[in-house]
Amino acid sequence: MTGNLRIDLDRLLARLEALAEVGAIAGGGVSRLALTDADKAGRDLVVSWMEGLGLAVTIDRIGNILATRAGSEDGPPVMTGSHIDTVAAGGRYDGNLGVLAGIEVMTVLNEAGIETRWPLAVGVFTNEEGARFQPDMMGSGVHQGALDLDEMLAATGIDGTTLGENLHRIGYAGAADCGAVRARAFVELHIEQGPVLEEQGVTIGAVEGVQGISWSELTLTGVANHAGTTPLRLRHDAGYAAAAIACAARDIARDMGGDQVATVGAFTLVPNLVNVVAKEAVLTVDLRNTDEARLREAEARLAAEVARIAENEGVGVARRRLARLEPVVFDPATIDLVAATAARLGYSVRRMPSGAGHDAQMFAPNCPTAMIFVPSKDGISHNAAEYTAPEDLRAGAEVLLQVLLAKANE
Amino acid sequence: MTGNLRIDLDRLLARLEALAEVGAIAGGGVSRLALTDADKAGRDLVVSWMEGLGLAVTIDRIGNILATRAGSEDGPPVMTGSHIDTVAAGGRYDGNLGVLAGIEVMTVLNEAGIETRWPLAVGVFTNEEGARFQPDMMGSGVHQGALDLDEMLAATGIDGTTLGENLHRIGYAGAADCGAVRARAFVELHIEQGPVLEEQGVTIGAVEGVQGISWSELTLTGVANHAGTTPLRLRHDAGYAAAAIACAARDIARDMGGDQVATVGAFTLVPNLVNVVAKEAVLTVDLRNTDEARLREAEARLAAEVARIAENEGVGVARRRLARLEPVVFDPATIDLVAATAARLGYSVRRMPSGAGHDAQMFAPNCPTAMIFVPSKDGISHNAAEYTAPEDLRAGAEVLLQVLLAKANE
Repeated sequence: MTGNLRIDLDRLLARLEALAEVGAIAGGGVSRLALTDADKAGRDLVVSWMEGLGLAVTIDRIGNILATRAGSEDGPPVMTGSHIDTVAAGGRYDGNLGVLAGIEVMTVLNEAGIETRWPLAVGVFTNEEGARFQPDMMGSGVHQGALDLDEMLAATGIDGTTLGENLHRIGYAGAADCGAVRARAFVELHIEQGPVLEEQGVTIGAVEGVQGISWSELTLTGVANHAGTTPLRLRHDAGYAAAAIACAARDIARDMGGDQVATVGAFTLVPNLVNVVAKEAVLTVDLRNTDEARLREAEARLAAEVARIAENEGVGVARRRLARLEPVVFDPATIDLVAATAARLGYSVRRMPSGAGHDAQMFAPNCPTAMIFVPSKDGISHNAAEYTAPEDLRAGAEVLLQVLLAKANE
Repeated sequence: MTGNLRIDLDRLLARLEALAEVGAIAGGGVSRLALTDADKAGRDLVVSWMEGLGLAVTIDRIGNILATRAGSEDGPPVMTGSHIDTVAAGGRYDGNLGVLAGIEVMTVLNEAGIETRWPLAVGVFTNEEGARFQPDMMGSGVHQGALDLDEMLAATGIDGTTLGENLHRIGYAGAADCGAVRARAFVELHIEQGPVLEEQGVTIGAVEGVQGISWSELTLTGVANHAGTTPLRLRHDAGYAAAAIACAARDIARDMGGDQVATVGAFTLVPNLVNVVAKEAVLTVDLRNTDEARLREAEARLAAEVARIAENEGVGVARRRLARLEPVVFDPATIDLVAATAARLGYSVRRMPSGAGHDAQMFAPNCPTAMIFVPSKDGISHNAAEYTAPEDLRAGAEVLLQVLLAKANE
């Protein structure tokens, strides 16, 4: 009875530990930038586990590793997976958990001698982080046809070498066509990388989609003046206008509620002196929402506030769009399956958006897709301090196991 | 009849031009940092004019130049003057006007053969700007006993040499005791260095005092978090708190009215990235008022707002006092004399505070003191673009002439 299958937490932890030793840095973290020697060593280790399970391993032309376990019928596999590249000083769970939990699921099925109706596959997608080569989510993007293979092979990294030459260098320039293996469905397990589950004491997040992102850079041009001799009414203070915009961004997000967030993370003044009214300010505004119409509303309200503040202060304003990604909506039936499975297994669960991007979002337009989140201690990730408790890792892997089984037996 | 005396604008402009050629920089500006070779050349030129007028020139131990014109009675002179050092890239009016208008007054009196009751003196005070050696207003401060001579001689400049050795090097380490010549009264003509007179179409400012200054640096400590995955209610955003404080500072100053000003001129975030909630913010707040009680009120109101904002956002706050100077109040009778003289001569006049520091404030505790302001185009100073129209220069010098005559015949 597949409903009684359980993952082996010690085995999952041992694989997480073994993979974390490849590129280990102080504090328990990992430095395994895409297509470096450390990434090659990590890939080799993961492939050795896949081959040890008798999975059919293929490497495609963008370097994605796909390991397939046959079903009783031929056809596109139900797929899981994630990435094993990290940021320059990252943690051991981000990405790795999704790959190793997928391998753990295969291991459990092998040990129980279970044959699913449809094949199952676990993928390791190239360069999800975008820390060495831009853009991020590259391997899954090429796999799903959202990014062009040749352009991506020509992408130049922070060290001046191309992605393509590094794929050859480490032996992961595969022969398989990207996307030759299509997915019947895609379900990815990932750490939350945020504080919500921990703060609410919830174990499983049934991810409904990925927030849309709107990044702007605003440059405000005022007049430098003496802080003592210039009355307030004669000022054109770029710094004050920038501060007022930062407050307005927060106010708009708070007023809109829901999952709307707004962040002014970068803020610089010129000349940045205690006794000189700033002649120039540059700030960034990061707006996110899971709903495109609401995200547009936030953008429009911010633009109106920026115009009002700039006019009142008599400063010029120039806007540069840094990034704009529409929200991704996952498959309702698959989200329901994740939520129901978590509840059936006795785990607390909440539906939630993802604030960060993930490989799963590349699959969402093409097949039923969802994600499973487990808590991140203090919301920390991209840092050696990234941590998810073993019992939460177990919970996530158990839910993944049952969701994949259900999908593979549909 | 002394009331009919007029200054010679062409002569005043010619001396301003000649002095501006010493250390001239592009755009009509001047670079004559204190006690450099350029300062020595400027001093030599000014002393030659003083000696040409038959004035008794003394150099004191801090390098102040004092040129005295005898009166019919002995006793402390009525004094005017200012400084001729500039910032690294300054203008031609700041300081220089006060010295050269004083020399012009002496010239006019000589030509008219007028003997005043009390002696008149014009001073050139060492290192008013504080751009090479700290603190500023050094020569006048030592002269009036507010600063210690030996400490000031040991002050080390931005080039690592001491003020004392530079005085010797350029031949201006005088023998006279500082303060051997006391002032009966002190009246300084200066450009406004602010936009108020120009903006209001007024020619003469009767300066009532110098604003008190309160400079603080605030360091806010929050928590770095992902801008996408961290809900607003879980944030401890040092950047938002800093922006809210900058807005509060403006609101407080606007609400208090009068001449209260508040400026946040420096503002930095860590890590200063578009998609990371700032973990640290450092900002400065510059508060000024001519009234000490009001300045304290502004400080108290700001402190309350900082505490409220920090608590609401859950960020830590540390405050460092960068500077605190009490306001200086000039002599009401001398202020009245300036205002009445300007009106009698047909010039528009307004009473106003000085937002910047000047040598006159060092005299204020010890003798009746006031200042005369003339307009600065666009409020610009400490810049090659510093400019005061010839007719305004004439107006200021005419008022100075009549005020000094009145004081010297009291």
